Amino acid sequence: MRFFLLAALCLQHLPAVFAGVLLPRQNGTATWMDTSLSAQQRADALLPHLTWDEKVAQMGGIRQLLSANSTFNQTLYDSLYPLQHGILSYGSQLNQAQTVLPYANMVREQQRNNSLVPWITVTDSVNSIYLPGGTMFPATLSLSTSWNLTLYEQVVAAIRDENVALGTHWVLSPELEVSKDPRYGRVGEQYGEDVYLIGEFAAQYVKTMQERDEDGYMKVATTVKHFLYGQGSGGVNTASMDGGVNHLYNDLALPFIRVFKEDPASIMISYASIDRIPMSMNKAMIQGMLRNEMGFQGLVMSDAVAINHLYTQSLVASSYKDAAIKAVKAGMQLELAPQQPACFPYLVNSSNDTSIVEMVDEAVRQLLIIKFETGMFDQPLPTLENLNATLRSAGHLDTNLQASRESIVLLQNNGILPRPKLGKVALLGPFADILDPGSYAPSTSANPENGRTLRGSLEAVLGSESVQYVQGVNIRTDSGNSIAGIQQAVAAAKEADVAIVSLGSLSVYFLDGNVAQRTDGEFFSHPDLGFPGQQQQLLDAVLDTGVPTVLVLNGGQAFVLNNSTMRANAILHTFLGGEFTADALVEILQGQVNPSGKLTVTMPQAEGAFPVYYDFLPSDAEGGYAATVAGVCTSDWSFPCLTRGGATMAFGFGLGYTTFDIASSKAVVAGGGNVTVSCTVTNTGSVTGKEVVQVYYRQQYSNLIELPNKRLVRFQKVELSPGQSQDVSFSIDRNELGYYVNAQYQVDSGNYTFWVGSSSRAQDLMNVTLTL
Amino acid sequence: MRFFLLAALCLQHLPAVFAGVLLPRQNGTATWMDTSLSAQQRADALLPHLTWDEKVAQMGGIRQLLSANSTFNQTLYDSLYPLQHGILSYGSQLNQAQTVLPYANMVREQQRNNSLVPWITVTDSVNSIYLPGGTMFPATLSLSTSWNLTLYEQVVAAIRDENVALGTHWVLSPELEVSKDPRYGRVGEQYGEDVYLIGEFAAQYVKTMQERDEDGYMKVATTVKHFLYGQGSGGVNTASMDGGVNHLYNDLALPFIRVFKEDPASIMISYASIDRIPMSMNKAMIQGMLRNEMGFQGLVMSDAVAINHLYTQSLVASSYKDAAIKAVKAGMQLELAPQQPACFPYLVNSSNDTSIVEMVDEAVRQLLIIKFETGMFDQPLPTLENLNATLRSAGHLDTNLQASRESIVLLQNNGILPRPKLGKVALLGPFADILDPGSYAPSTSANPENGRTLRGSLEAVLGSESVQYVQGVNIRTDSGNSIAGIQQAVAAAKEADVAIVSLGSLSVYFLDGNVAQRTDGEFFSHPDLGFPGQQQQLLDAVLDTGVPTVLVLNGGQAFVLNNSTMRANAILHTFLGGEFTADALVEILQGQVNPSGKLTVTMPQAEGAFPVYYDFLPSDAEGGYAATVAGVCTSDWSFPCLTRGGATMAFGFGLGYTTFDIASSKAVVAGGGNVTVSCTVTNTGSVTGKEVVQVYYRQQYSNLIELPNKRLVRFQKVELSPGQSQDVSFSIDRNELGYYVNAQYQVDSGNYTFWVGSSSRAQDLMNVTLTL
Repeated sequence: MRFFLLAALCLQHLPAVFAGVLLPRQNGTATWMDTSLSAQQRADALLPHLTWDEKVAQMGGIRQLLSANSTFNQTLYDSLYPLQHGILSYGSQLNQAQTVLPYANMVREQQRNNSLVPWITVTDSVNSIYLPGGTMFPATLSLSTSWNLTLYEQVVAAIRDENVALGTHWVLSPELEVSKDPRYGRVGEQYGEDVYLIGEFAAQYVKTMQERDEDGYMKVATTVKHFLYGQGSGGVNTASMDGGVNHLYNDLALPFIRVFKEDPASIMISYASIDRIPMSMNKAMIQGMLRNEMGFQGLVMSDAVAINHLYTQSLVASSYKDAAIKAVKAGMQLELAPQQPACFPYLVNSSNDTSIVEMVDEAVRQLLIIKFETGMFDQPLPTLENLNATLRSAGHLDTNLQASRESIVLLQNNGILPRPKLGKVALLGPFADILDPGSYAPSTSANPENGRTLRGSLEAVLGSESVQYVQGVNIRTDSGNSIAGIQQAVAAAKEADVAIVSLGSLSVYFLDGNVAQRTDGEFFSHPDLGFPGQQQQLLDAVLDTGVPTVLVLNGGQAFVLNNSTMRANAILHTFLGGEFTADALVEILQGQVNPSGKLTVTMPQAEGAFPVYYDFLPSDAEGGYAATVAGVCTSDWSFPCLTRGGATMAFGFGLGYTTFDIASSKAVVAGGGNVTVSCTVTNTGSVTGKEVVQVYYRQQYSNLIELPNKRLVRFQKVELSPGQSQDVSFSIDRNELGYYVNAQYQVDSGNYTFWVGSSSRAQDLMNVTLTL
Repeated sequence: MRFFLLAALCLQHLPAVFAGVLLPRQNGTATWMDTSLSAQQRADALLPHLTWDEKVAQMGGIRQLLSANSTFNQTLYDSLYPLQHGILSYGSQLNQAQTVLPYANMVREQQRNNSLVPWITVTDSVNSIYLPGGTMFPATLSLSTSWNLTLYEQVVAAIRDENVALGTHWVLSPELEVSKDPRYGRVGEQYGEDVYLIGEFAAQYVKTMQERDEDGYMKVATTVKHFLYGQGSGGVNTASMDGGVNHLYNDLALPFIRVFKEDPASIMISYASIDRIPMSMNKAMIQGMLRNEMGFQGLVMSDAVAINHLYTQSLVASSYKDAAIKAVKAGMQLELAPQQPACFPYLVNSSNDTSIVEMVDEAVRQLLIIKFETGMFDQPLPTLENLNATLRSAGHLDTNLQASRESIVLLQNNGILPRPKLGKVALLGPFADILDPGSYAPSTSANPENGRTLRGSLEAVLGSESVQYVQGVNIRTDSGNSIAGIQQAVAAAKEADVAIVSLGSLSVYFLDGNVAQRTDGEFFSHPDLGFPGQQQQLLDAVLDTGVPTVLVLNGGQAFVLNNSTMRANAILHTFLGGEFTADALVEILQGQVNPSGKLTVTMPQAEGAFPVYYDFLPSDAEGGYAATVAGVCTSDWSFPCLTRGGATMAFGFGLGYTTFDIASSKAVVAGGGNVTVSCTVTNTGSVTGKEVVQVYYRQQYSNLIELPNKRLVRFQKVELSPGQSQDVSFSIDRNELGYYVNAQYQVDSGNYTFWVGSSSRAQDLMNVTLTL
């Protein structure tokens, strides 16, 4: 009872978790507590000591420790605990970290005294820790547009250290989906459309998160997800995919194969059906492809409610128990069940089915390994003192500001920017005074605890008297009053030196005050790729005034920018912002910061003109008929003109305030067959800036499998002052230039083309060829 | 020389084809000329007598007998002939049938005298024969909306007999693509989105075309195509598909499996890459799936230029010869090469490669079988006299008018129709005075040789003084004069009793006068699903006048009808019209004909809200979150609301001028395990009309493979006078209720639901359940 009394002293409203006498079964002298043994050895030693019910219970957990307003429900906790006590999550992502910690510690402490196996907390962690109080970075897609892996490492290290301070040693990131459908609502949580860039960023995430502490413990275990997804039917979150082994390997699996080199602790199975078999029971994909072919060694977990879906949605199981059995036999080892009933508790009556017992033993062993690896059995619980010292440290905030500066993409600029003296600003649009952080951010859109909206940032710099703010229209719905709002906005524009119109698509948590305006994020998809609601009408009206106009885009998605929109003098995309995104944007508008972000998703040219990614297959370019000729579109009614090499705002594209020359490209084959690609980059403009040098390649002819038009193989961000030159050289292992045929990797001899330049667009690239 | 002299007498400008002495090698006493033997036996007997070059030459042919204006190019013909003389096509589809016949007969006669093997003419045949002069029916999608297989049989019989009269004994139809991407430009040539309906219509086509004549010859050999295609990336004509064996079998192959029961003579391989392997060299798909698993026995041909694409487009072959070898080894037996170079002539030097020799022998054997089956060795050449007697016979024209009446779909009607007295009509829009026949129709859009435009039909009925025609805008481009055009249209509307606005998407042959306005048909795809150009603005302006307005849609595609469009008092879709489509439309407007067409493609609800077919997989409905509840959409920003059960103009939907009650639905299992579904249909309105009774089904739970939400299994069109009732009963073999798992067909026991009603929409269906 010692802990409970202590807790009662510390926490005024902390409820009694249980009143019985503690019977600590955790024995300090047991073999599994021998820290000189490996995590595997300790797990093997502990496993035989668990009862069947305890094993089943390890395969699930409690995902809602607290509901909104930090409410702990003892009855619910007690009812779930017996068969669901492997993993713990905090529940509502809007409870303050410092408020949640004592509750989490309470149940952790109790379990340490009551069970052989401690809890491990597992949460999402897209922009930051999963609770307010930490440093809130821009979301993943925004960070990917920095093309800066060094900076990204610092971001992840900060998020990691804040998680550790909170006692969160397992996160449900990174997301490795290849974001090739702009309608998919989760693109903002992901790294964009390119398999190589996703792999490099995600590998950096896993390596940094899973760094070992001084005692050799893994700081934070990661979960790569979702295996597999990325181009589901219609961009729907749980939708089916057709399958095809060469497609799956070459288009979707490559980021996973890359990241597996960093030994991520776990993997989450996608909601999708692939080739009509739901992934949560897809034995061929989990045990065949993932385990046997790709060699994944970690734990396999479900997505939230996904096992239930086998019964309730996909109709391929006839009961919750049937769903549980099918999932566990396919290789599912941990169930995420934020809603009840969970399915795995139904396994409690399957202790006499040896095929299930074997799978359960292996599942629990995997979970125990993660708990031993992360020190759950050995390390003290986190303290409020250390939490306060770690969250929002000066270093973390500095990293965040720098990341925000590099995560904004300038898409169009007719010379209006930079604008050191902004003058009188008409700040217009429904995103001008909110922060669009993404649905997994622990923040609200209207009054973020930390950070500023664009209005806040502008007023801080210019003074509120220089900023006339008019919302004009709502994001998606207007109660018939949009005409008045638009007229107000137009009037403000006419009185201003510059109009800044902030539009987009909103992704917020479901408890956010603006949730009724939501159009983006998980479970949302975009029925068209324009701006929701009356936003286009607002923009058109402002542009009709002729006042110099800067358009700021918000949201985790690409938009179609129609001819009217393109009249804007400058266009910037901020995607899903962090707490300093608006500050960084104002720095960019004024020229204090030179923008250096580059698109990681291509912006489609028409509502239906997708998929639009740069690495399309040659067949997708329609055989040359009415298609692109040397990158020039010959017919806007033949799709390839809009989708295959015709997009002006393509992957890798982004403007700055200076110009760069990339010249003297060379590609040579070294002794071992490796390739060195080099070039000289020169800042030919008048201000210091950063350029992302990009290298793409393809082999001239393949023998059977179609290969993409081109693919990114290297990139490097360099900073140069005016007139400065730098030689940039990339070494590429010959073995990186292969592809998969029927799950076998092969590298061909023959002619290869390498392109070097500043974007994926033909006009921004120079090519060199060589023979391997 | 007899024929040549005769020809010279008949044809003033007919050129000399060759001047050498004829050496007829065709021996009337040879075994292969013994008509008591089967086609197979005759082919086997002939094959050894062919030289290697002759065999290679059989595998290709001349596709451009005549270019535009009936010009015969002797030099070109002579240069191609030696290695390409298996099949013959007419070239330009705008040369008159009666003009072309003598040229075709000339070269056929010459070859009969000069070669062991006669030509066979092979052409497209979507709406009619491939040359002007025949009866021009609505295109395939339009005919499918009749849901009337008996009527369709009459249509196909007419097209068949006109082909036979022309000497065309092999057609490149039917198209079995499952039209699930509304952006794909060829949807108008196809039967819609449902695998069962496609299979039944296409089977009817094959059975009717391949009917035997009194001498036992197959009248016209068919080519089912394209194996496989239907949901390529972005709706692009040659685009890749992902693959997945369960997807391919259950979603795309079912129509082929159905039609193979009718023994189609040949199959055309699609342009697609499936799972990254171009189909033209996809041995696993051609020899594995098609031949071994599906048991296809006929000839396998390429699509036009598709073998070249392996080298020039897909970059999986390193030369034309490499492409030819890869294609022939994969099982390709005939090359369509409208453009040169063809690839198969490169096989001329491969006579010492036994693996190629074997494939070539089998290919030529297949072609010879078709030539023997169709009487090419035995039957006389067609005569002009018989051609003139057959084309456009009264019976054919009657059938065409009836088909046109049943192929128009009434999508919306607020009571404005029927309108026996149309009064003063403002006829507006760029489709009001053209005929949109599809790119494979032998007709022009502006001045069709036969048939009328809507303007022509209306003026014929009402007199030209009652019809004020204003084009208003062009289809896709306006040279800045659209404002004046729209103003003119509005002025006309204001003076009229009713405005009829005819809009859409144009599909015409590339020699058509309006080709610059083309937006639909092969090689085109739709970058958005609204109306091209300024057509929406024209419509909006007319609707703003408040004048009663009928909207007529044209084009082989579904359109998004936005809120403004839906203000139209009535909306009808005519798809790709035949020569009587406009006449039938006027009859419907006036109530002389009660419309009875039903959609075979679902109309999407938003620009990006697709795929939108009714038989989606349960996973595609997003797990119930923010999705449809009992068919009612709960959020327009969550895709399923717009795509999965939420479409108002769904597959099977169409209005008429009367109402029907479908009641007393029953489903019972008979002794043999077969199911009988029955209902009573009553005409509850005041005019005679036709209703399409539709039966859908699904089993409650499957064991592994996801099954569609529901699927069509039977339909029947019934005509009833007011107050009349009819019992309709459908017998369904238990073996029709299965699905494919890893290419194996299985039928499950368990609970099944059957739905009976008037469309695929939940609100139009009643369900009954039973246990099998």
